[in-house]
Amino acid sequence: MQLYQRQCTNYAADAVPLPDSESDRLILEVPGWQIELQGGVKQLVKQFSFPDYVQTMSFALSVGELAEAEDHHPEILMKWGKVRVTWWTHAVNGLHINDFICAAKTDQLAGQ
Amino acid sequence: MQLYQRQCTNYAADAVPLPDSESDRLILEVPGWQIELQGGVKQLVKQFSFPDYVQTMSFALSVGELAEAEDHHPEILMKWGKVRVTWWTHAVNGLHINDFICAAKTDQLAGQ
Repeated sequence: MQLYQRQCTNYAADAVPLPDSESDRLILEVPGWQIELQGGVKQLVKQFSFPDYVQTMSFALSVGELAEAEDHHPEILMKWGKVRVTWWTHAVNGLHINDFICAAKTDQLAGQ
Repeated sequence: MQLYQRQCTNYAADAVPLPDSESDRLILEVPGWQIELQGGVKQLVKQFSFPDYVQTMSFALSVGELAEAEDHHPEILMKWGKVRVTWWTHAVNGLHINDFICAAKTDQLAGQ
C-alpha cells in the first residue's frame, strides 16, 4: 500500500522517533520533502507554489482539513503564492510514520 | 476615523517606509502587535490563540480573505491553536500605513 493510502496510527505513550535508517528510507517515497532540524527536532518540510492567492489559500485550507481528519496537525506557513508545510510529531519529539503518511497525503492534495 | 475603518491606499512607486516617529505612534493604536526586524526589514507581528483547530483554521482563512479584499498579503503561520500574522510592505521594504490598517482589521476579525 502506498503511503498516501494509509491512515495515521495511534502510538504508544512511550513511542520513540523513527530510527534514521527508517526515515532515510521513507524520505525517498515523498519527493521534494526535506528532513530539517529545528531545535534538535527532526521535521519534514516542503514548500508548494501557486500562481495566485486564491489557490494558495485553498491549498492551505485543504491541508488544514487533512490535519483535522487525521488528528495530526502540521505547521502551515502561508504567504502570497507559497505554502510551506512542516510535519513532525510532538509526542516523539521527531518523526513518526504518521508524518510521512501525511506528507504523502499533502502531495496528493497538491496534485503531486 | 479608526484604523480598522480605513482602506488600504495605493502608494507611489517611490514610496518609502513610515518614519520611526510615525510607526512608534501607530503601534500604540494596535495593542499586542510588535514591530520586529526580519533581515533588517520592520514587520508587524502578533500571535492569536484559539481553543481548537477549527477556530484556528477559520481565523487564518478570514485573514486570508481580508488579504484578498485589501490586495495586501501577510505571512500567516498556523499551527494547532495558534495563528501568527505578520504584516509588512514589500514595495517599501518595511512598514506602510497599510500594515497598521490591516493589523487593526485583523484584530477586528479576532474580536479584539
